[in-house]
Amino acid sequence: MKRTHTCNQLTKSDAEATVTLVGWVKSVRDHGGVLFVDLRDRDGLTQVVFHPDYPEIHTAAGRLKDESVIQISGVVKPREEGTINPNMTTGEIEVSARELIIENLCDTLPFPLEDAKAEKVNEDLRLQYRYLDLRRDRMSGLLALRSKASKSIRDYLADEEFLEVETPTLFKSTPEGAREFLVPSRLNPGEFYALSQSPQQYKQMLMVAGVERYYSMARCYRDEDLRADRQPEFTQVDMEMSFIEREDMYKTIEGLLVKLWKDTLNVDVPTPFPRLTYVEAMNRFGSDKPDTRFGMELLDFSEDFAESKFKVFKSVLDKGGVVKAINAKGLGDISQGEVKTMEDAAKAMGAKGLAYIVVRGDDPKEWRSPILKFLSDAELEALKTRLEIADGDLILFAASEWEQACNILGRIRLESAQLLVKREKMSISEDQYNFLWVVDFPLMLFDAEAGRHVAAHHPFTAPVPEDIEMMMEDPTKARSQAYDIVLNGSEIGGGSIRIHQPELQDKVFKEVLKIPEDVVQSRFGYMLKAFNFGAPPHGGIALGFDRICAILGKTKSIREVIAFPKTQKGQDLMASAPGPATTRQLSDLHIGVIAEKTE
Amino acid sequence: MKRTHTCNQLTKSDAEATVTLVGWVKSVRDHGGVLFVDLRDRDGLTQVVFHPDYPEIHTAAGRLKDESVIQISGVVKPREEGTINPNMTTGEIEVSARELIIENLCDTLPFPLEDAKAEKVNEDLRLQYRYLDLRRDRMSGLLALRSKASKSIRDYLADEEFLEVETPTLFKSTPEGAREFLVPSRLNPGEFYALSQSPQQYKQMLMVAGVERYYSMARCYRDEDLRADRQPEFTQVDMEMSFIEREDMYKTIEGLLVKLWKDTLNVDVPTPFPRLTYVEAMNRFGSDKPDTRFGMELLDFSEDFAESKFKVFKSVLDKGGVVKAINAKGLGDISQGEVKTMEDAAKAMGAKGLAYIVVRGDDPKEWRSPILKFLSDAELEALKTRLEIADGDLILFAASEWEQACNILGRIRLESAQLLVKREKMSISEDQYNFLWVVDFPLMLFDAEAGRHVAAHHPFTAPVPEDIEMMMEDPTKARSQAYDIVLNGSEIGGGSIRIHQPELQDKVFKEVLKIPEDVVQSRFGYMLKAFNFGAPPHGGIALGFDRICAILGKTKSIREVIAFPKTQKGQDLMASAPGPATTRQLSDLHIGVIAEKTE
Repeated sequence: MKRTHTCNQLTKSDAEATVTLVGWVKSVRDHGGVLFVDLRDRDGLTQVVFHPDYPEIHTAAGRLKDESVIQISGVVKPREEGTINPNMTTGEIEVSARELIIENLCDTLPFPLEDAKAEKVNEDLRLQYRYLDLRRDRMSGLLALRSKASKSIRDYLADEEFLEVETPTLFKSTPEGAREFLVPSRLNPGEFYALSQSPQQYKQMLMVAGVERYYSMARCYRDEDLRADRQPEFTQVDMEMSFIEREDMYKTIEGLLVKLWKDTLNVDVPTPFPRLTYVEAMNRFGSDKPDTRFGMELLDFSEDFAESKFKVFKSVLDKGGVVKAINAKGLGDISQGEVKTMEDAAKAMGAKGLAYIVVRGDDPKEWRSPILKFLSDAELEALKTRLEIADGDLILFAASEWEQACNILGRIRLESAQLLVKREKMSISEDQYNFLWVVDFPLMLFDAEAGRHVAAHHPFTAPVPEDIEMMMEDPTKARSQAYDIVLNGSEIGGGSIRIHQPELQDKVFKEVLKIPEDVVQSRFGYMLKAFNFGAPPHGGIALGFDRICAILGKTKSIREVIAFPKTQKGQDLMASAPGPATTRQLSDLHIGVIAEKTE
Repeated sequence: MKRTHTCNQLTKSDAEATVTLVGWVKSVRDHGGVLFVDLRDRDGLTQVVFHPDYPEIHTAAGRLKDESVIQISGVVKPREEGTINPNMTTGEIEVSARELIIENLCDTLPFPLEDAKAEKVNEDLRLQYRYLDLRRDRMSGLLALRSKASKSIRDYLADEEFLEVETPTLFKSTPEGAREFLVPSRLNPGEFYALSQSPQQYKQMLMVAGVERYYSMARCYRDEDLRADRQPEFTQVDMEMSFIEREDMYKTIEGLLVKLWKDTLNVDVPTPFPRLTYVEAMNRFGSDKPDTRFGMELLDFSEDFAESKFKVFKSVLDKGGVVKAINAKGLGDISQGEVKTMEDAAKAMGAKGLAYIVVRGDDPKEWRSPILKFLSDAELEALKTRLEIADGDLILFAASEWEQACNILGRIRLESAQLLVKREKMSISEDQYNFLWVVDFPLMLFDAEAGRHVAAHHPFTAPVPEDIEMMMEDPTKARSQAYDIVLNGSEIGGGSIRIHQPELQDKVFKEVLKIPEDVVQSRFGYMLKAFNFGAPPHGGIALGFDRICAILGKTKSIREVIAFPKTQKGQDLMASAPGPATTRQLSDLHIGVIAEKTE
């Protein structure tokens, strides 16, 4: 090694030692002709002093710009009394430089590398100079955190006797899923691989192969429009186990997350995690990934409004819908603009409008609301009692078909919470980790557009055993053995117990999903075949590793925990990808571009 | 868990316990009406007995076929005296079944799963039923070995304070390298990603970013013709370190391999590994990846033949070439057919023919060779003395330009060794691990066809400091700071110290490689730019993880250590990939197929 010590190592006990350090110049300060350089490496900082007594290196040091790379040799000196910095490991000493090698001078930086300043810089500029952005304390900390998280998970899974197995990413196209990246095959003209969206099929084959416990930190690919903080390639902690039931999976994942939180944040997460059925999660929180760090639960007022004079509610109820409400306590000071934003959000989710009551005083007659005049005393009293209404509250309603009403009011609940946090009337701690399982999802959804059922999770998901008959009668009423792991309102993973009986799987494809036989064969034929050769009961899960790292790092965007992320247009601004291909490349691959670049 | 014990757990001390086991039926045997089932799970085997006293499950067990999946509950019984199997953990007991659940019946197997039999089966059939092939003892052992190897490497690198960083695989096209897989971009019409051939550029950017020590078990992609045991996607242990010299890398990798061999094979590998310069490796073994488990070294007879009457040798020497020879001791009984095969191999490498001498007795006059009559007594004596020739030996020659002569005779050396092993006159142990470093490679090669120099390793490789001037004069004579790690004749990894000075890198691109400025800018512009913002000295390496696992597993092909490999035509015979894409998919991607499938 060129260096004798890192920049986070030297203390008073090293005084008078001759040392060699390497690193980046964090800053150069001139105090009365003496130059003080803060030298930074991955581990920390050390103060290096260039004295005019050593004129050659003193002059050279004068040319140093921030972020240049240097190697220095010198003598460790205790700092003078008033200049000791007790907050730094190396705060007791400085190194008096005797030799200086300038490895690499730094040009003028395109943006400052102090976190507070850099985070106000245009993200595209940061992405273009990602090698500089990653030098910042916060970003290098996030890289280190991700590495530690990966090690924690792998250690846990190895201890639990999972085998790490790598599965192919050059897979076949499965057009019914999310949009895929295609890869033309040179050796098979006119044919394409698809980049694997997940190792789902391969990991089930590994169970048939007798692996029993599989894991992989699997790179997965989805060609999505990159709204909502998605990336074209992402990493999931992918697992599958044989001879298990749901309880085994809960225990395994809880153990993994407890260790992960302990190893990375030194936080003790209590177990077992609460469990909510899908129905309960929707009813209480209006979401299948509820944030339970605050209450503001949804209440159902369908019975109270069964005979209401308010036609909007009544007609929904008559059609079998529901009326639900929340009390956003203390949000009675909501502005017209804020109401409008909420209403727009509700409408975007299919609501016709947003009914609400601003509570003033104790007497419902004094409350303010366009709907107040339609409500009977009994109805108002029911609201008041059940929602524990007090002066200054805001009551918000959703009336619609059950699932839609839940989703709308769940969204309104989150918006309300944000407004309350902004007003400092509520606090939602980033240091509180409310893990929970959501279970008993419906097995099937009805796709009204296509006029047929589609798998809510995926078509290999097993129904709850006692619901198999129901699956044939009304597939949306049958519960599946799927589970999601939710943290603070984010789904951080999900999976299911799979079907391992070929007859049942066949029935799901043909009789429930009504997929034509030839399509079943071309897409899933080999899996159905494999299930005839000794397939064990099995189930699995996939955890979103990028999302988990973002939560551990208390950062909003997964782009911050990915070393070289793509932009929303799928571009790597640093390396300039994607780009044009040569005619030769395309002809080798038997393809041509059929649309000009239109922008 | 459904089971109470694995199939490798129960002993005499569990007698009379009621247990539940799950697994695959390895075999069913009927002894006088009593059915004996060997039940197998990932961990081992347990004998389960179905007695006619329990008629219901006895009848059901009678229908079981090999490889069916069952769950049984029963009572542990000590085996009778003569039936104890001391070679099995569970050999003292059997489980008398009381309950049987048949989870999955197995169809008739397409091929037998005993290793010896299965390995004679057509590989395509095995690949089509990979989920069965992987159940075999040998294959499941290889999967477990790979998982263990990965864990060993990761633990070592974490202890050495390497950060694991994931880099993108959707990269830009770099058409000068190996052939790439292209991925059309939907969001950027007419543009393409290339699947990364290695994280080379990103890992160098991570060094500029100050990561200092990076590693990744990186999936890499090359669209090669899949001869010679290559796979389109493969895994490399990818590393890069800042502030190091070559010695630091040697020490780090030696530590990694020592731990890996200990953890997986319990073999102690001695360090430091021997080092050979490229020139020495070529001169002595005729290869830059020499197998040193046996000698048969090449000797140079150029001086001895300087005035030879044998025109073939003389004319080569007059043109500055060399004459080299090996003594394949004891191979004097080589057949005409074997000589022909060797000669063909030599010719395929550019030789005009293969000169050889079959040694009979002690007197050179009695030796047999078409070239004997041209050789002087002094020349024969030189051969005899320096090659320590004895009765029954075979002397083989190569005469050509130095590099070609070395390569040809190196190949002949390996062929000779194989023939000697076949004759049991030599043994090359699979349990001997001769690691070595090959260093001081030439920096540049001259591409006669293109009429210019090309980088021997890659264009970021640093020259040996004292050879920088030579690089400008004669680039092929300058040595690089590249290194290969070689094991038993296989290159298992390679890397280099990189250039971190933008001026030197620029000079290499423009003055040595003569790459036009615009091409340099479009391909490497961002790297050259990054090197102006505080780039530390750095170097790295990549180890071929698939090849290493194959060597650890004592298997010839990397296909055996990859869970789901592709065929030589790049096909996944199990899942049927690649396949056609829909018109909709192609139009979304702005491409069309321009050649019909021609087969």
